Amino acid sequence: MKVSVGVSNRHVHLTEETYKELFDGIDLEIVKELTQPGQFASNLKLTIKTEKSSIENVRVLGPLRKYNQVEISKTDAFKLGLNPPVRDSGDLEGSSPITLEYNGKEVYLDKGCIIPTRHIHINPDEVEKFGLTGVKEVSVKVGGEKGGIFNHVRIKSANMSFFELHIDTDDANSFMIKQGDIVEIINEN
Amino acid sequence: MKVSVGVSNRHVHLTEETYKELFDGIDLEIVKELTQPGQFASNLKLTIKTEKSSIENVRVLGPLRKYNQVEISKTDAFKLGLNPPVRDSGDLEGSSPITLEYNGKEVYLDKGCIIPTRHIHINPDEVEKFGLTGVKEVSVKVGGEKGGIFNHVRIKSANMSFFELHIDTDDANSFMIKQGDIVEIINEN
Repeated sequence: MKVSVGVSNRHVHLTEETYKELFDGIDLEIVKELTQPGQFASNLKLTIKTEKSSIENVRVLGPLRKYNQVEISKTDAFKLGLNPPVRDSGDLEGSSPITLEYNGKEVYLDKGCIIPTRHIHINPDEVEKFGLTGVKEVSVKVGGEKGGIFNHVRIKSANMSFFELHIDTDDANSFMIKQGDIVEIINEN
Repeated sequence: MKVSVGVSNRHVHLTEETYKELFDGIDLEIVKELTQPGQFASNLKLTIKTEKSSIENVRVLGPLRKYNQVEISKTDAFKLGLNPPVRDSGDLEGSSPITLEYNGKEVYLDKGCIIPTRHIHINPDEVEKFGLTGVKEVSVKVGGEKGGIFNHVRIKSANMSFFELHIDTDDANSFMIKQGDIVEIINEN
């Protein structure tokens, strides 16, 4: 079972309310379609900040969601002085507080910052075809001089999903892989 | 077989000639002993730079060596616009060129920048005790929510070595482990 790699850099999802508060008057436009249908990199970038530090030019992904969510790597977390939990999208209870800033306007989130769980987007037909029915997580094997195995890779099945492994920049850089590389799913269940 | 983790941040080893050229008149002093006997973090820091970018405050480790060597992570390599090979210490043919700078003085190295191979320091008695005689590399298993397995971990046996796994900051951040954590060696040979 082979799957292609998608590397997620740090990014932000916004509610309509937060979007209006920060970017009032600036349209949310599609700059680049992402591999998952309907998802896109927008024209908007903001700064994420804590008392310790900040990171500029963090991309807002669209479309708008029902929750605000800031997805960062452990490397980013050290820079910001945060210790965010490893979570699936939308599972935000107890996640780290963080401040969003654009052009002098700030929105404080009392939760919403996470390190995303490694996961594979897949559709129900592929779940069945690959014998993954009922499987919640798998491992992924990567070749190369700094290769190895990622454990705890969540299976995220949804209609219309594009079959792809999503990892963060720390994972990609540790194993020296990049967007579009092909790796191997290991089903230990 | 358990081993403790040592995380190597980016650092530089210098020859006596390069040290004198950059830091003439400033003593090389021990700031902190490292876990490997005789090795130390010195009082000296410099800037590593390329045409694309630079990274400040890179620590010089002592003692001085017979070669100049700059050890960085893949994350650093992206920032600097370099594509260094994954190498053992001292194996520098074909490694990346880089410039060292301190207080306006510069030394251009036509080679010397590498991403260090994952490795385990061990002494010959422990090699025998752990059944690793003749084994060149092993794997290492890491638990936790972002755990997994590092392949291609080199066995570096030397008298007086302190038994420890050395990984870079990308490896540590990807797997969410830190200095002093305990992980498991897997001998697949």
